[in-house]
Amino acid sequence: MRGPRRPDTLFWVDPARIAGSRLSLDAVESRHLLRVFRAEPGVLFEATDGVGNRYHCRLAEDHHGEARAEILARESGSGELSGTLHLLVGLPDYHATEAIVEHAVPLGVSSIVFAVCRRSGRDELGPARLERLKRIAVAGVKQSLRSRLPVLGTTPSLATALAAAHPSDRYVADPAGVTAAIRTTDANQGAQPIITLAVGPPGGFEEGEGTELRASGFSPICLGPSRLTTETASLALLVLARNSFVHRGLGGI
Amino acid sequence: MRGPRRPDTLFWVDPARIAGSRLSLDAVESRHLLRVFRAEPGVLFEATDGVGNRYHCRLAEDHHGEARAEILARESGSGELSGTLHLLVGLPDYHATEAIVEHAVPLGVSSIVFAVCRRSGRDELGPARLERLKRIAVAGVKQSLRSRLPVLGTTPSLATALAAAHPSDRYVADPAGVTAAIRTTDANQGAQPIITLAVGPPGGFEEGEGTELRASGFSPICLGPSRLTTETASLALLVLARNSFVHRGLGGI
Repeated sequence: MRGPRRPDTLFWVDPARIAGSRLSLDAVESRHLLRVFRAEPGVLFEATDGVGNRYHCRLAEDHHGEARAEILARESGSGELSGTLHLLVGLPDYHATEAIVEHAVPLGVSSIVFAVCRRSGRDELGPARLERLKRIAVAGVKQSLRSRLPVLGTTPSLATALAAAHPSDRYVADPAGVTAAIRTTDANQGAQPIITLAVGPPGGFEEGEGTELRASGFSPICLGPSRLTTETASLALLVLARNSFVHRGLGGI
Repeated sequence: MRGPRRPDTLFWVDPARIAGSRLSLDAVESRHLLRVFRAEPGVLFEATDGVGNRYHCRLAEDHHGEARAEILARESGSGELSGTLHLLVGLPDYHATEAIVEHAVPLGVSSIVFAVCRRSGRDELGPARLERLKRIAVAGVKQSLRSRLPVLGTTPSLATALAAAHPSDRYVADPAGVTAAIRTTDANQGAQPIITLAVGPPGGFEEGEGTELRASGFSPICLGPSRLTTETASLALLVLARNSFVHRGLGGI
């Protein structure tokens, strides 16, 4: 006699579906648990709510195809960095936005805003595309065992994005910048570090946009002797920034 | 009257097509220069030979569709890091190999070897797939303005890859590793640093493979609290390694 197999997947549970010590999965996740894994009552599985919690669950019943479960334990912040990383990207083509979300979410980004810049040469992302990027982000949270779903957004201009940006240390990828390491400043000492990173669209930020960024406190960082695409530069800057957390002894990475 | 437009692209020139102060482009690159850019004799353009040189050229003639040019100047090592990065990857699915080549080449990698590991679940890359990856690498060299084409390879096992690996500092991505920074050792002091990075296939290296890697001098590096795919881990490790060059004051990045 075999015991029920424990699914090696992190399931997604909408916060609205959690009530006290019980939760239920939506149609897609229920199908995955009940049909793909053929889970039967008693099976243990894990789920994340995308707002910072991971739940250790036991399947209670298959209620007309809806997986209902008992919460055995809750863990807070598992899979999350010890600091906050915001990414502001000059809107590239749609394929590149997907590549950025696909890699940046497992790397621990907290938010990604795609801003239409002068060289973007395209309109803001519409609701359908944002929805598709959100599905990629949810898949990334599950695959990487994070517990927070990053916020994805789009703005019609760099100025709008800067007006809405979080107070934080700020760095911008700039071939003419200094080849310095990213460090969190004293202003953040003691608190969780917050870093905002900006990367230009294909072709880079225009001169006026560079001036706006510097006026908003973004320090230019040179990412090396080769020319990087918007997506590769975004990932390189994220990796350097998350690595800076460890130098504060916060166990970031 | 307008002067000839200078193409904003780096062209590819096979080293065999360079003779003294003259060079000629192959059919694909000639078509690009002569048809897409409609270049006429006198136009200035730049080309790389993929073995470390960038040539500043002037188009001499359109010889039955072949672009023949005069070399005005040669620059060595432009767009290249001040150290050498070798990447050893546990073979993932083909889509992931493409993503790795696409991002790793602009980041400055010197070689990528895809090794069939126990959890790879697939055969070595065949010649057609390697050829396709090489085309992606050439496009990456041109786009990123590098001057060296990385070597791409495949091996039937991790042991074969390790037997052929370059003497160097060695790091392996390992969730159980220490969260340490990558530093080049004293053994490299004074010379150009050489770092070899290893990343497991999807599912990771098996225990025996981990033992082989440690026996071969690979230090385990933890890439953070979230689980990364083979491709994201490869890029994260490359970014950390290339960033270590700057701490030696070599102006790496």
